[in-house]
Amino acid sequence: MPKYKVIAQKLIQKINSDDMKQGDKLASIEELMKYFNVGKNTIIQVLTVLERQGYIYQVRGSGNFVRKHRRHGYINIMETSGLRNNLQGFNLDTKMLDLKVIKPTTEVMANLNIDEDEEVYYVRRLRSIEGRKFSVEESYYLKDVVPYLNQDIVEDSIFNYLVNDLKIKPGFTDQFLRVSKLNEADAKLLNLKAGDPTIFLESIFHLENGRAYDYSKVLYHYEETQFFIQGTGTMNL
Amino acid sequence: MPKYKVIAQKLIQKINSDDMKQGDKLASIEELMKYFNVGKNTIIQVLTVLERQGYIYQVRGSGNFVRKHRRHGYINIMETSGLRNNLQGFNLDTKMLDLKVIKPTTEVMANLNIDEDEEVYYVRRLRSIEGRKFSVEESYYLKDVVPYLNQDIVEDSIFNYLVNDLKIKPGFTDQFLRVSKLNEADAKLLNLKAGDPTIFLESIFHLENGRAYDYSKVLYHYEETQFFIQGTGTMNL
Repeated sequence: MPKYKVIAQKLIQKINSDDMKQGDKLASIEELMKYFNVGKNTIIQVLTVLERQGYIYQVRGSGNFVRKHRRHGYINIMETSGLRNNLQGFNLDTKMLDLKVIKPTTEVMANLNIDEDEEVYYVRRLRSIEGRKFSVEESYYLKDVVPYLNQDIVEDSIFNYLVNDLKIKPGFTDQFLRVSKLNEADAKLLNLKAGDPTIFLESIFHLENGRAYDYSKVLYHYEETQFFIQGTGTMNL
Repeated sequence: MPKYKVIAQKLIQKINSDDMKQGDKLASIEELMKYFNVGKNTIIQVLTVLERQGYIYQVRGSGNFVRKHRRHGYINIMETSGLRNNLQGFNLDTKMLDLKVIKPTTEVMANLNIDEDEEVYYVRRLRSIEGRKFSVEESYYLKDVVPYLNQDIVEDSIFNYLVNDLKIKPGFTDQFLRVSKLNEADAKLLNLKAGDPTIFLESIFHLENGRAYDYSKVLYHYEETQFFIQGTGTMNL
């Protein structure tokens, strides 16, 4: 792991600890250089990562300060490294409902920007948190990028498999959120009634090179789901 | 306006035009330097802004490429410069329901991180898009930061007033989203029924120096509202 990531993770642990609160001042760049025994460029890279991820904010001429904004149980919608990584500390269970290779539908072709000849993996999963039904997920993975999936992978963390085993480099993500109403089948899976509201989240995940490789549609249990959305707000036009 | 902002706005206009699509390559840094007659640092600043705002993505060793991800009518939840700036091209109407200076409630004290002696402006507004009821908004502004508000300001754009007249420098924003159910009074305002679902969005806006100055609670008409959430995804840990 590159040096800046190791240092960033150490600082995040420190910030997450109970003795730091919003507005607390971070050590100066010079102090951090000395403490971690690295150069100025590495520390600046670390601080840029921490700011982008919403752990700190920079005040020109004053220094860097802690952000403590999370609310317990809220899902960070900008954290696209998978639900398992997002909800650490919670008891998460994933059940595979379907897994097969298919030809893309018109909707999938449009969202992944592919033509009808490209095959995709179709995955359908039911997820529970602390034993309570939480979400029904449908995902379409480009088979050209994700050549193999099985039940073990799908019921653990697909994201970790893609990054650690397939060495995929995730890039940017587009997400679309609205409230919809559940049909009979999905409602039954979530222990709700047909017509009950649901948060419907569509996500398009891209590789670092800009190619879309995963289109997901998730129905969230409206009573179990809360999202946290952080904006860095810096350099607004 | 600083040079980099002027150039960024010109490039955004270009990207928004119909003849650019997702994946189209941008001119190189050298070409942009020559075209706009500025130095390398300015162009790099411009590209950083465009990437953060989701207009482009950078591929190491290959260049910069256009992102075209927006869906018509979706609100960009990361764009915190006010609904009026967010929904340009739509017919937006804002009606003031209440405006007064009050002592903060416990909830407001917690979210703005203030004590009971600090006064706040309380604003309640009903917003319509294209003649259809859209949202009921309650906002609490720190009177120390926003010393004056009136009906004209509140029914136009509070954000523009803060930035252009009060010269406030907005910083980062924390937002919390969940589905809730409407009570009788709010349902009536939105032409819905009590118990109907609503997207409940809480936002805490901070100044550049990290001080919270605005806590807002918005109830959105669930059939009229769709959010777009963009992730840059770069430098994930």
